This record gives sequence, structure tokens and C-alpha cells, in this order.
Amino acid sequence: MARIVMKFGGTSVGDIDRIKNVANRVKREVEAGNQVAVVLSAMSGVTNQLVAWCNQMAKLPDPREYDTVVATGEQVTIGLLAIGLQELGLEARSWCGWQIPIRSNGVHGKARIESINTDRMSAAMAAGQVAVVAGFQAVGPDERISTLGRGGSDTSAVALAAALGADRCDIYTDVDGIYTTDPRIVTKARKLQRITYEEMLELASVGAKVLQTRSVEMAMKHRVRVQVLSSFEDKPGTLVCDEDEIVEKELVSGIAYSRDETKVTLTRVPDRPGVAASIFGPLADASVNVDMIVQNVSEDGRFTDLTFTVSHTDLERAREVLNGAQSTLGFERLTDDPDVVKVSVIGVGMRSHAGIAQKMFQTLALEGINIQVISTSEIKISVLIAEKYTELALRALHTAYGLDAA
Amino acid sequence: MARIVMKFGGTSVGDIDRIKNVANRVKREVEAGNQVAVVLSAMSGVTNQLVAWCNQMAKLPDPREYDTVVATGEQVTIGLLAIGLQELGLEARSWCGWQIPIRSNGVHGKARIESINTDRMSAAMAAGQVAVVAGFQAVGPDERISTLGRGGSDTSAVALAAALGADRCDIYTDVDGIYTTDPRIVTKARKLQRITYEEMLELASVGAKVLQTRSVEMAMKHRVRVQVLSSFEDKPGTLVCDEDEIVEKELVSGIAYSRDETKVTLTRVPDRPGVAASIFGPLADASVNVDMIVQNVSEDGRFTDLTFTVSHTDLERAREVLNGAQSTLGFERLTDDPDVVKVSVIGVGMRSHAGIAQKMFQTLALEGINIQVISTSEIKISVLIAEKYTELALRALHTAYGLDAA
Repeated sequence: MARIVMKFGGTSVGDIDRIKNVANRVKREVEAGNQVAVVLSAMSGVTNQLVAWCNQMAKLPDPREYDTVVATGEQVTIGLLAIGLQELGLEARSWCGWQIPIRSNGVHGKARIESINTDRMSAAMAAGQVAVVAGFQAVGPDERISTLGRGGSDTSAVALAAALGADRCDIYTDVDGIYTTDPRIVTKARKLQRITYEEMLELASVGAKVLQTRSVEMAMKHRVRVQVLSSFEDKPGTLVCDEDEIVEKELVSGIAYSRDETKVTLTRVPDRPGVAASIFGPLADASVNVDMIVQNVSEDGRFTDLTFTVSHTDLERAREVLNGAQSTLGFERLTDDPDVVKVSVIGVGMRSHAGIAQKMFQTLALEGINIQVISTSEIKISVLIAEKYTELALRALHTAYGLDAA
Repeated sequence: MARIVMKFGGTSVGDIDRIKNVANRVKREVEAGNQVAVVLSAMSGVTNQLVAWCNQMAKLPDPREYDTVVATGEQVTIGLLAIGLQELGLEARSWCGWQIPIRSNGVHGKARIESINTDRMSAAMAAGQVAVVAGFQAVGPDERISTLGRGGSDTSAVALAAALGADRCDIYTDVDGIYTTDPRIVTKARKLQRITYEEMLELASVGAKVLQTRSVEMAMKHRVRVQVLSSFEDKPGTLVCDEDEIVEKELVSGIAYSRDETKVTLTRVPDRPGVAASIFGPLADASVNVDMIVQNVSEDGRFTDLTFTVSHTDLERAREVLNGAQSTLGFERLTDDPDVVKVSVIGVGMRSHAGIAQKMFQTLALEGINIQVISTSEIKISVLIAEKYTELALRALHTAYGLDAA
């Protein structure tokens, strides 16, 4: 007998018929002999409505009250699913965060789970009862409801799977798994059977938003096997797991892209120790998230050019901060270019194989695509190119790394 | 400094603008130097939607899960009002039933409040914080949410006022007070300044549904002064209070009516000891609520006619029960008449004054209205008449008892 956590997102519980559909899926897992805990989001749209109401009451609503309001969406769906499961002849009960309890650090609006007491739930599950748990919510040291921030239900599910010692955490969503790249652009994209935590994290960080980053980090830390699969179709998805579980490792697992990048260049920055800190410190203070950074070698040892990327929404703030400090920083000119895309090749195989970066550069060169910025991590190579080449670059790289579906 | 509980129903918190309006009302009470607790219902329509969803999931939804779902409506409004109060510069926080806690007997769907621990709330109120409390909900011995049944927010408010030792419990609603009779029918109806608990209970039991009966019973038991007033207009309402607080007692306070009556007559019932019990026992077992009962004196000492009233929705069940037992009960025929109305004259003054019933009978006789059934209590006289005379009877009685507005 296995223990399984099943998590369903907002579209999967979007109306009564879909909640009944979820009940049937849960029933199949129970009939297969598994102990099941289900984690639910609110009906799609409901959380947005609740957030909108809070913002209509005040520009900056008290986060404690905000949490009280927005946590109700999940309380509705868990009650309804428990009713639906009972209607199918199963034992089931709903659990709010405070009833379990799922304890958080109490940072309202973006709380972190600190502990989950699974004693009662675990006993009930062992006795055959399906536990239906509200995602997204916990209770803080102040005994008030705290929410985990957007996408927090994924984190709830993984944390619960870790606490329950579950064999698997199945995340049901509106896509049927993790693909080698965006299938809307590359028709030959393939669904991956397995992917490592590390690769999944890199994919998430470059814009493939299937799983919330925090939930993947938590899964990696606690070695929770996470399966991403469709709530509307009945077929296996993609397993996010430890590298050891993947026998046939591919050199490259996926190719991701992010259009939300603006290239910022500062020309003729004085080339002296501490100049980078003096530029990026104020940006960090202004909560501007800086991504790729390249500093050219200066020819004369006196001036250098500095290039980095920020998200579109952060550009205006970055401009204000830097132009305001131009005299102190001493650069000549700030230019920016929003028409860029970051393309990333990701794979744990590149740790042990040379030539993967070289293949990327060659492939892009053959297509006549100029690389503007390069940055690398242990399992990822990212390049910044002109946005108009997005599709061309993705398709060429997908073929070059042998990822095309047969 | 006084302590006041303010309760707002579903229409008073029906949208964001109305919740802001409630916040302003609360602010005025605080600025007048009062310690204030606010009890809220869900936005109007929301509870119905939640109930409908439960019923769509199952014909007989688990009442524990039903409670989990329907209690969310109040959780939304308390969070929103707390935000609104803070926006006006007041200290405020929301309290769910389980956070206070308000303890119930755990009978889900129709729980009764057993105790309220006001220690923390009371301290916070003394320190200037407005307590915003979810009506309708409590937490049972099973540590699960239990709701108090329809209209339960009135009961929450009165119970909280009793526990807090509040000076007054103000029930804001969509009418501006208690009237001598239905102003839609009698244009000369007057708003009462004060009315006793006993009279209010009789009014509620004959269909004047301004306050939930249980909340009036509780107010009477704990001597909580309840004011009924409009949430949309700014003027005093009607105070429901102890008889001692009413200096100028009127003989008759109000005239009420209920159209939800069907007259049932059993002819030629054997007139022997125990016959009433043998008829009304099975009806009670079938949850048929029997109201007025009249047994005629039998002429020959062998047979009698028995007449009683039931609500329209109970008629079919009453018919089934009685016709099914006709041979045992031995009556000749069952007839029913739905076209009747119960008109009641109510007043604590009739305890010490004779002639009040007589005036009722005379007034109706003068209008040519035949009385079909009479029943009386210490402070109420009710008659059953043909429904078509409803308006005529109400107007004539209102004038006869000197209730007409000048």
C-alpha cells in the first residue's frame, strides 16, 4: 500500500462538475489500494475576486485580514470535495490549515511552512479516510490564518507529502507534463518521462511556470517524488525526481525561454574596484531584480561597459535609480533594449560532458543569430538574443540537441 | 463608556460600498466613546450559493462539510470590514468562531452556542480595538466548524452581547424597527419605540420575521437589550427590552398575521380519552408542526370534530399520515382549507385587562368576518379567518385598539 498526495489546481476544481471529476480520480487511487491525501486550490477566479475585494477596501489591506479573506476559497473546495467523495461511498473529511495544524512562520501573505502535525490525519488515513486538505493556508504563531503566497498550494502539497512520508506527490494541472520546450512553438517538442529537481528549478526560473519554484526546492530538500500530470486526461505525466532515479540521462533535458527581459547597458563606467557593488547595491535596495550581468574587459584599464538584464516591470525603476546616481557612478550613458529574449539550454548531463555550450553557439551562428550576452550555471547555458529570433532559435536548438520527437 | 454589539445582516454587507457604509457607522459609535464589537452575516446571496453547491454535490451533504463550506461567507465579510475600519483609522481585527472561541454543542447545521470565551477579545476591546466577529458560526467539541442555522447571526450577536456584558445589542437590518402591524397593508401602522421580549417572541411566532426567535429567547434569558434599526437610515429603531423598562405600557402592542396556515378538519372522530394523543402523536413523529387546535364538544358524547392548522408545506405529509391511519383513528373524513389566515393581537397589557378578546371578536363581527378557530395565550389572541379578509381585519383591528398613527 502506497501513500499518495494528489494536488488539484484552480481550473481542476473550477466548477461542480469538475470537482465531481476530481472525486472520481481520487476514488480510482483509493481503489488501487492507496492511502490518499488531496490538496486543493480555490475554484479558478475565486481567489482573484477575493483579492480584488480586499484591494477595493484599502490600497494596502492589512495582510492578516487579507489572509482571512482569501483563505476562504480553499475552505469551500475542500468541503465540496469531501461531500463528493462521500457520495461515491468513500470515507473522507476536510482539513483546514488550522485544524491539522499546518504551522507557518506567520509572515502574512507569504508565509513559510514550519511544521505539519500529521498525527490525527495520518491515523485517519491509515483507517481508510481520505484527507482533503486546504492548500495555500496555514496558521501562524498568532493563531491567525496565514497564506503562502501565489501558487502556494503546490508548496502545501509537497510539504504535506514530506510530512506524511508519501511515496509520491501528484500535481494535477492543465498541462499533461513537462516538455523539452514550449510545444506551442516547437511542434516536435516531447513530453519528458522524468526530470531532475535541479533541471526543474532551472526551467521554472526561466519561465516554464508549471510548478512553483518554492515547491520544487522543498521537494528537492525532502526528496519528495513529484509527478506533474493532466487533470483532464488519463495518462502518465512527468516525474520530477532525484538524479539517481533517472537511468538514461540525456545531455540536455529542455530548452526554455523568457521574453520578460530588458537589456540595460551602461557605457564608459570607470573601471575601478567596487564599481559593480556601487551600481547593483542601489538596484537591490530598490527591489530591482537583476539577472544576467556581463562586464567587458576594458581596453585602456580606465573605462568599461556594463550590461545586465531586468524584467520589463522593473525597467522604469532601474532607470530612475541609475540616472539619479549618474554623477556618483560616473558612467557616460544608459541605453536599454526591451526586444530581447533569454534562451536557455538545461541539463544535468552538461556537468560531465564538454561541448554543450559550443553546440549552442554554433547552432545559433549557423542561423545567423547574434548572441548579445552569455551566462552559465552548472546545468544551464543562457544566451540573450534579439526577440525576433525566438522561434528560430528554439527550433534549431531543439533539433541540434536531438530532442525532436520521432 | 458603554459596550455595544452591532450586528449587520446580509443586505447591509451586500457589496463593497455597503461594507464601507457599515465601517462608517461603526466609526461613529467608536467616536461616541463606546467599546464596539461587530457581528456580520455573509454578503446577501453568498450563503445561498454555497448551500446550492453543497446540494449539487450530494442530495444529503455531510453536515460537517456543509458547515465548513457555508461558514466561509462570514469569514469574507469580517476580513473586509476589518480592513475598512483600519482604513478609517480605527484599530480593528476579525475573529472567526474558532478563534474566540465560540463553543457550540457541535450539532452541525443547527448548533447551539454553549459558551463564549471573551477574555482575549474583551481585553482587545478595552484597549480600543473593534472586534469584528463572524456570525452564524462556532466550533464544536470535535474542533470542527459548526453553524447555527438560518438567521443564526442574530443569535451570535445576542450571545456575544450577553457574554461581553454589553449595554445594548443593535441589530441593523433592512427595516427600521418593529411596527404595530405590517405597514404594507395598514398605512397607519406606527413604529414602536419599545416592545417587551415576550411580545417580540409572539410577533416572531406569527410571522413577523425581523428577529430570529432563538435570538429573542436568548435575549430574554440573559436580559440583553436589543435594538432593531435600519442600516440605511440614521434614526432610532425599536428597543426590545424588559417589561420594567417600558413606562407607558399599551394594552395591545401589535397585530400580526400569518398566511402560511392550512386548516385541517377531521369529522366524526370517536370521542374517547386519548384520541387527541393518537392523532397528534403520529403527526409529531412525521415532523408535522401543528399550530392551533380546536376540539368541539360532542353532542351525543360519541363523536367529535377536530380542527387544527399546519403550514402549507406540511399539509401533504399530514394528509398521508392521517389517511394512512384512518381505520385506526376511526374518523369519517379529512377536509382541508388552505385559504385561511391567522390574525393575532399581541400585548402584555392583556394580562391585567379584561375585554381585549371581546373587542377583537366584536370588531371582526362588525365587519362581517366569521371566526373559524380561536386560540389564546397569556399575551396573545389568535383567530383563523378566511384569507380574503386579511387586509380588512388588520385595518379594522388596528383602528379598534387605538394603534393608528395620528
